[in-house]
Amino acid sequence: MNATDDIPRRGISRRGLIGGGAAVAGVAGAFAVGRSSEGSTAEPATPTASYAFRGEHQAGIVTPAQDRLHFAAFDVTTDDRDQLVDLLKQWTEAAERMTQGKPAGTVGPVEGASNVPPDDTGEAIGLPPGGLTITFGFGPTLFRTEDGTDRFGLTDRQPEALRTLPHFPADNLDPARSYGDLCIQACAEDPQVAVHAIRNLARIGFGTVAVRWSQLGFGRTSTTSTSQSTPRNLFGFKDGTMNIKAEETKDVGEHVWVDAGDDAKAEWLAGGSYLIARRFNMTIEVWDRQPLGDQEAFIGRSKDTGAPLSGGSEFTKPDFDMPGADDLPVIAPDAHVRLVHPDFNGGARMLRRGYNFVDGSNSLGGLDAGLFFLAFVRNPDTHFIPIQNKMAKHDALMEYVKVNGSALFAVPPGVGEGEYVGQALFA
Amino acid sequence: MNATDDIPRRGISRRGLIGGGAAVAGVAGAFAVGRSSEGSTAEPATPTASYAFRGEHQAGIVTPAQDRLHFAAFDVTTDDRDQLVDLLKQWTEAAERMTQGKPAGTVGPVEGASNVPPDDTGEAIGLPPGGLTITFGFGPTLFRTEDGTDRFGLTDRQPEALRTLPHFPADNLDPARSYGDLCIQACAEDPQVAVHAIRNLARIGFGTVAVRWSQLGFGRTSTTSTSQSTPRNLFGFKDGTMNIKAEETKDVGEHVWVDAGDDAKAEWLAGGSYLIARRFNMTIEVWDRQPLGDQEAFIGRSKDTGAPLSGGSEFTKPDFDMPGADDLPVIAPDAHVRLVHPDFNGGARMLRRGYNFVDGSNSLGGLDAGLFFLAFVRNPDTHFIPIQNKMAKHDALMEYVKVNGSALFAVPPGVGEGEYVGQALFA
Repeated sequence: MNATDDIPRRGISRRGLIGGGAAVAGVAGAFAVGRSSEGSTAEPATPTASYAFRGEHQAGIVTPAQDRLHFAAFDVTTDDRDQLVDLLKQWTEAAERMTQGKPAGTVGPVEGASNVPPDDTGEAIGLPPGGLTITFGFGPTLFRTEDGTDRFGLTDRQPEALRTLPHFPADNLDPARSYGDLCIQACAEDPQVAVHAIRNLARIGFGTVAVRWSQLGFGRTSTTSTSQSTPRNLFGFKDGTMNIKAEETKDVGEHVWVDAGDDAKAEWLAGGSYLIARRFNMTIEVWDRQPLGDQEAFIGRSKDTGAPLSGGSEFTKPDFDMPGADDLPVIAPDAHVRLVHPDFNGGARMLRRGYNFVDGSNSLGGLDAGLFFLAFVRNPDTHFIPIQNKMAKHDALMEYVKVNGSALFAVPPGVGEGEYVGQALFA
Repeated sequence: MNATDDIPRRGISRRGLIGGGAAVAGVAGAFAVGRSSEGSTAEPATPTASYAFRGEHQAGIVTPAQDRLHFAAFDVTTDDRDQLVDLLKQWTEAAERMTQGKPAGTVGPVEGASNVPPDDTGEAIGLPPGGLTITFGFGPTLFRTEDGTDRFGLTDRQPEALRTLPHFPADNLDPARSYGDLCIQACAEDPQVAVHAIRNLARIGFGTVAVRWSQLGFGRTSTTSTSQSTPRNLFGFKDGTMNIKAEETKDVGEHVWVDAGDDAKAEWLAGGSYLIARRFNMTIEVWDRQPLGDQEAFIGRSKDTGAPLSGGSEFTKPDFDMPGADDLPVIAPDAHVRLVHPDFNGGARMLRRGYNFVDGSNSLGGLDAGLFFLAFVRNPDTHFIPIQNKMAKHDALMEYVKVNGSALFAVPPGVGEGEYVGQALFA
């Protein structure tokens, strides 16, 4: 919390945006006005809304999932710690400005002298803030390069859990779509606003960082607020029914935010989180030839309502013991909903923020399409790696996905007034 | 015009959508409600609006440019003419259904038997029509393959102007992003609706066609109605100020629609058009380091207002003779606005429908970003090739773009009741 908490901004107070369950629900409710009843990815009624950049936690995690994404991972191209810190300071200022609907720089895209390059690229002139959030993360290689070099004097503060993710079955990783020293997640209701944010942060970083990979997502596949309707992924199924919602403050505290006592080497990460990014390529052409009943058996839910195959409606708890045909339960042993359910994973839950993508075509005459998986967890060792291993080994869905991008980042806590993002790490 | 012209649909009559200037303006006005004053790509106030699929001309040309695009080019993988015709019939039915917000097939994504694959993929369940238009085109290789084979008995009906586009200076074409026997342009206000359309048409075509390439566009760069505000491209400039608008019915007739007398070999194309698709990769990182004054000199317009450098406001006619410094005109000889202006191109105008894109990153540490150029013209030989040649040779902008995708298609006229798209070609 900071000094300007109570200043209303475009009708939404910062307290309402940064605070806990009820306040966040209020914002989510505002965004939900005008949506169709089910899973529409149409823009919200209030594209002029903005979220505060500064606060206890970074925005873009429990913020109601916006419809569009531009995500970028960066390699740091300098070994100069001061230059890196300077970039984080510049990024902080630019990100705060852009989330308020302002230009990236203090001069602006067209207001400066004609003999210097503008400090904003201009394609967002006239566009409202669009609910933009900008979320920064630090990759393992920022702390120690692959060959063990401590470029920035950070190795002794590297979080225990911040390591390159292990190889999972069915991983077929493209290094050009994986890893990264830094990442930025830009989410907005207007894709031009999200692209403008990433593009200008990359521009500011010229000479210090280079874009390693970047991913657009055209439609959200998660809800992070109970007021949002559940969207559909490119399997055609509702996605995110079981996702942690911002209103579940106890679970958010337990499963999303890193606690000060979690890692003695990384107290700077308290109030932050870990971000897992995985590019799941779906073989949608093969999927589309599977019978409806098989598709539902793979997922364990109705394609229509999203209800578990054991009955009820979307949010009914699945009955994993209900008997079905052939001495098997109604929800099959290899059904996705069973394998990833907290009951079978030590109670672990994730806050997912994935997006549908189509990136042109593949060499097989189909679309290069899938789900760009993003999840925020308190600890990947307990909340992601075991679940992903089980899923990769046993999940019926795995026949229809290939993972070709993967990365893990530590997401520092929110930025207080006068601070820059990740300041506690460099202090 | 057809029998159901006067049936209102979701509050918008088909006559209003298919007809001439004033009626189209009414629709555009409806879409414009709720937009911010300048260039917002936020969704319109009426995502439930739908456009008629059948009519005198195909929809998606003079239709007010929607915000999102999915475009796909296909190779036909059969030599069987009947199979090709059958696909066009199936595509026609599916396209008409989807533009009405219905599933691609008659059964639906979740309504069928559990032991057969659904005839719709499901990711658009619950989504409104989203202003979806689906526009079909035929490439030169449909009429005659590269090696001269007349696979479908169409060679003697190949339009004179439907040839592989010539090599232009600065073209660096990737065959995997160029050419195609068939194309489909899907435009909508919701990208999930556009993607759903292309994906289902590709699914229906399995065994007859394969996706050759596909391109998403996240933000429109054109206005095709006087009621739309001018959006910005990734150079940060307003784009499409001079574009032909639907309300300019005389110019639409003169520059967009093929006339029955235009080509004796291709009377089937009367009421249709030619579609040029070009993928302009922008070197945005280099562009962003150019001084504001240089950027404006390259374009010939103010980056702020879009007014020509000779003065006035956005829609003021440029004064190309107005003297500037150093014995040069204010609007430089190599300024984009001068080189492409109808006054210097025999009066030729295009109807452009381009989109901004970002497709991940390039190998140079930057974004793979640019403008996916789409233009509809009456004749590429008079309305595109000379202008593109001049631009490629002389335009100051060319230093900041590389063209790596290119294709030309003949766009058959609208589809009457009981007909399938392109029927006159096969009759």
